[in-house]
Amino acid sequence: MHQAGDVRVEDRDDPTIIEPTDAIIRLTATCICGSDLWPYRGTDPLDGPTPMGHEYVGVVEEIGDAVTTVKVGDVVVGSFFASDGTCEICRAGYESHCVHRVPMGSLGTQAERLRVPLADGTLVVVPGEPDDRQLRGLLAASDVLGTGWFAAVAAEAGPGKTVAVVGDGAVGLLGILAARRLGAERVIAMSRHADRQALARRFGATDIVEERGDEGVERIKQLTDGLGAHSTIEAVGTQESMMQAIRATRAGGHVGYVGVSHDVELPGLELFFSGVHLHGGPAPVRHFLPELVGLIMDGEIDPGAVFDLTLPLEDAAEGYRAMDERRATKVLLTL
Amino acid sequence: MHQAGDVRVEDRDDPTIIEPTDAIIRLTATCICGSDLWPYRGTDPLDGPTPMGHEYVGVVEEIGDAVTTVKVGDVVVGSFFASDGTCEICRAGYESHCVHRVPMGSLGTQAERLRVPLADGTLVVVPGEPDDRQLRGLLAASDVLGTGWFAAVAAEAGPGKTVAVVGDGAVGLLGILAARRLGAERVIAMSRHADRQALARRFGATDIVEERGDEGVERIKQLTDGLGAHSTIEAVGTQESMMQAIRATRAGGHVGYVGVSHDVELPGLELFFSGVHLHGGPAPVRHFLPELVGLIMDGEIDPGAVFDLTLPLEDAAEGYRAMDERRATKVLLTL
Repeated sequence: MHQAGDVRVEDRDDPTIIEPTDAIIRLTATCICGSDLWPYRGTDPLDGPTPMGHEYVGVVEEIGDAVTTVKVGDVVVGSFFASDGTCEICRAGYESHCVHRVPMGSLGTQAERLRVPLADGTLVVVPGEPDDRQLRGLLAASDVLGTGWFAAVAAEAGPGKTVAVVGDGAVGLLGILAARRLGAERVIAMSRHADRQALARRFGATDIVEERGDEGVERIKQLTDGLGAHSTIEAVGTQESMMQAIRATRAGGHVGYVGVSHDVELPGLELFFSGVHLHGGPAPVRHFLPELVGLIMDGEIDPGAVFDLTLPLEDAAEGYRAMDERRATKVLLTL
Repeated sequence: MHQAGDVRVEDRDDPTIIEPTDAIIRLTATCICGSDLWPYRGTDPLDGPTPMGHEYVGVVEEIGDAVTTVKVGDVVVGSFFASDGTCEICRAGYESHCVHRVPMGSLGTQAERLRVPLADGTLVVVPGEPDDRQLRGLLAASDVLGTGWFAAVAAEAGPGKTVAVVGDGAVGLLGILAARRLGAERVIAMSRHADRQALARRFGATDIVEERGDEGVERIKQLTDGLGAHSTIEAVGTQESMMQAIRATRAGGHVGYVGVSHDVELPGLELFFSGVHLHGGPAPVRHFLPELVGLIMDGEIDPGAVFDLTLPLEDAAEGYRAMDERRATKVLLTL
């Protein structure tokens, strides 16, 4: 991305092993993230031309001398932070905050080849050869499914719970899938787009609320004996969506927030008296990947259904346009 | 309190049973809370003369027709919200958010007699006749111990954990006691007052940090392999203390905040990337009271040690002055 609105597919040098813990992978597929739209729309200014993308499934082409858990030829998937898997933070399940983490977005996975730092900690080997549907699922697992899953875990979705979901992008939709897999009894999707409502239902939403803001909160309360949801997933990252999530949740309930915050300021006194639990941030997707890869390869879940447009990598610019103009929820780029 | 800085002990009408679920108690002792200083200092403006106080131990003098779990002559303790104990929120352990809650501060427990609404849900009967030390403990349990305990639970203090405590008032000090009782390995008290440091050590603090703000955070990191505390108790309620608590906590760690928020605005992006869990608000003290009463009556804990000044109720004004001028941490008022 050269600047806001200006995406070009250009030749760059092939990546090479720099650290003995690196692996080089040839991408099988990659995709465009809702968060890639922040710089595309100029909300997050760019400091010159920047490689883009942080989601990836690929085949290992080369490994550094210190790499032991992946080998050349393995099909692998990883998340948007490379992580060592061994530090105290990783071992506690927070790989996205690894003390040695490397943001994959800084390397740019919307490419033919990619250097993956800390390959042993970062990459998960996919058992067998994924078919097209599985490949789409794995690519979703790389970020949007993993992030939605973390949001559902952070919101403590589970048996007997009513879960509200703020945001009907790919993360919110997959948060619905996650909440249901975690056993939630009822999942209320907040969405006003017919196509996304349909996908929400397919992923297990039991109710749809079209209202937003205070009206949306009021509807959630009406559906929950006036108390609010036990668990709320926030998957947008704006002031309105955060307050909607907090207000839609009962005292003692849990808000799992994963929308990257933009100009959000949480009023302390309201948060105090809300009595909710708040947890979120960049999702430790790597923590959930082994389980998610298993569910996808076993055909238990089909998170790849969030991809509603597939383009070759060289048409990436059209993919950005389609997502920006809301003609697509999530764009897969093939190689 | 007639206005900021103006506390008077005056005759008011004796309370009477209004609802059949009420009880009337004769106060044995009451106290002045750190939060009573907010209106005293003019930070929270008063709307005319206001009865004060929300902490109480007393003897039941009269009960309404519907009251079944307390009887005349019982020694009882309750918390700063009356709660029904039967609604879905109470049953989930969040009595301070009970759908029928009544703030006891609106009735004013710095008095000889008190009407306690929802007596069955609100009051806990004390087994036996408390001695002076136990009475002080029970009065602490009514708010500051219960609040510190909730903060430690919200911060998930427990075995193997390092807990940082921001705030060396009565709640912070008793948060130290709670964290240790919950099994925390190490408790770092942030305090720069020698007398409070001594009490912190007596309650189980293993380390004292005198620095505040960024320097305080840096010291906590130095003490925790650069990672920050697993659990942090926030017991002040200012912007500085909240940010200090969040920054002192490692990703994936827990902040339990119970200082009533004053002009706090939490920056969304920093909170997002902190990766901490945030939970707090008005403590559901009633939830913990039966356990705390047991520990106090068994002599297992001595939370009443936070009271460093005892005055008769008629000298309440001097008690406020002493706390305002930091000559006392916590003032007990006898009757």
